[in-house]
Amino acid sequence: MAQGLIEALTQALQRLPGVGPKSARRMAFHLLVRDRDGGRRLGQVLLEAMERIGRCSQCRNLTEQDICAVCSSPRRDHSLLCVVESPADVQAIDQASGFQGLYYVLHGHLSPLDGIGPEELELDRLTARLGSGEVHELILATNPTVEGEATAHYIAELARERGIRSTRIAHGVPMGGDLEFVDGGTLRQALLGRRDYGA
Amino acid sequence: MAQGLIEALTQALQRLPGVGPKSARRMAFHLLVRDRDGGRRLGQVLLEAMERIGRCSQCRNLTEQDICAVCSSPRRDHSLLCVVESPADVQAIDQASGFQGLYYVLHGHLSPLDGIGPEELELDRLTARLGSGEVHELILATNPTVEGEATAHYIAELARERGIRSTRIAHGVPMGGDLEFVDGGTLRQALLGRRDYGA
Repeated sequence: MAQGLIEALTQALQRLPGVGPKSARRMAFHLLVRDRDGGRRLGQVLLEAMERIGRCSQCRNLTEQDICAVCSSPRRDHSLLCVVESPADVQAIDQASGFQGLYYVLHGHLSPLDGIGPEELELDRLTARLGSGEVHELILATNPTVEGEATAHYIAELARERGIRSTRIAHGVPMGGDLEFVDGGTLRQALLGRRDYGA
Repeated sequence: MAQGLIEALTQALQRLPGVGPKSARRMAFHLLVRDRDGGRRLGQVLLEAMERIGRCSQCRNLTEQDICAVCSSPRRDHSLLCVVESPADVQAIDQASGFQGLYYVLHGHLSPLDGIGPEELELDRLTARLGSGEVHELILATNPTVEGEATAHYIAELARERGIRSTRIAHGVPMGGDLEFVDGGTLRQALLGRRDYGA
């Protein structure tokens, strides 16, 4: 059993996305030889996080509380609701954009071929939220993919039935890029979505 | 503190080699959203491994026992000692080569500029091992780098003083490669180390 625990550690590290056998082995040896404190710290935080982090009862984002800091903040605009696919999207938007409304995390997108319909995404919770009268604008920030667009379309319909305005984030050329390397679909969207200069 | 534990997990994951802020965040969300079991398992194994894995009192390789499985195996040739720089090297050689002798792990190489001398590598332990009369051949399998060669040279001297034969692993063209992409230093070594064809 001399290799037992090292092997077990190498296996467990491969549960991380993007980590194969070779990187896992390198990580295991690195922690064991050079950074035992780091290894201990990571072990403790992992156990604590898996135990204590749940979903916000309002927006379904990951949080340690019953209601997350965003949803419970009085400085946020509660009439503006931004629908995203994942907790990572919330973090990306919140860090980058100065958006001051609330979020709603779907934890996925509609994908009939994979058996993911409105029930699996628990869209009835979102519907209830839209029916509360608090939300005046629904921002559809699902991914610009086929599934993301379909999901946005479906949710926009839910909003329309309740007389709530829904908007979609702009598609177009990313900032700082080189036009020649932008794909055709994006370029088409950028031309279709063109706006008066200086407006 | 809503982001506290997620942030702590993202930080802790960055102690892994080759993991920056973006991958760490991706890993944290992956475990929290899709693989809590994997996260728990990794946490437990990490804590257990950091606690229980120490160094073999004979070869200094990582092990859970006082003496590792290789050193305590009666089927191994105890007169053949292979000196390597790291536990990863032991694993690589053992998995690939069918080598049946014992190992000695230096946990580094001589590097005077970094203040790593014979004392820091605890070479007195290796010297004592060489003085035991058990070792008949010392295989120098340190890395083919400047420091690795210097370390091999130094240890070969220790062996010579005790009348023990020391050998160096062959340098040359790696198997399966394209000659045109092999660096000059390696090609020089491959020519210098040429052997009679069919011998």
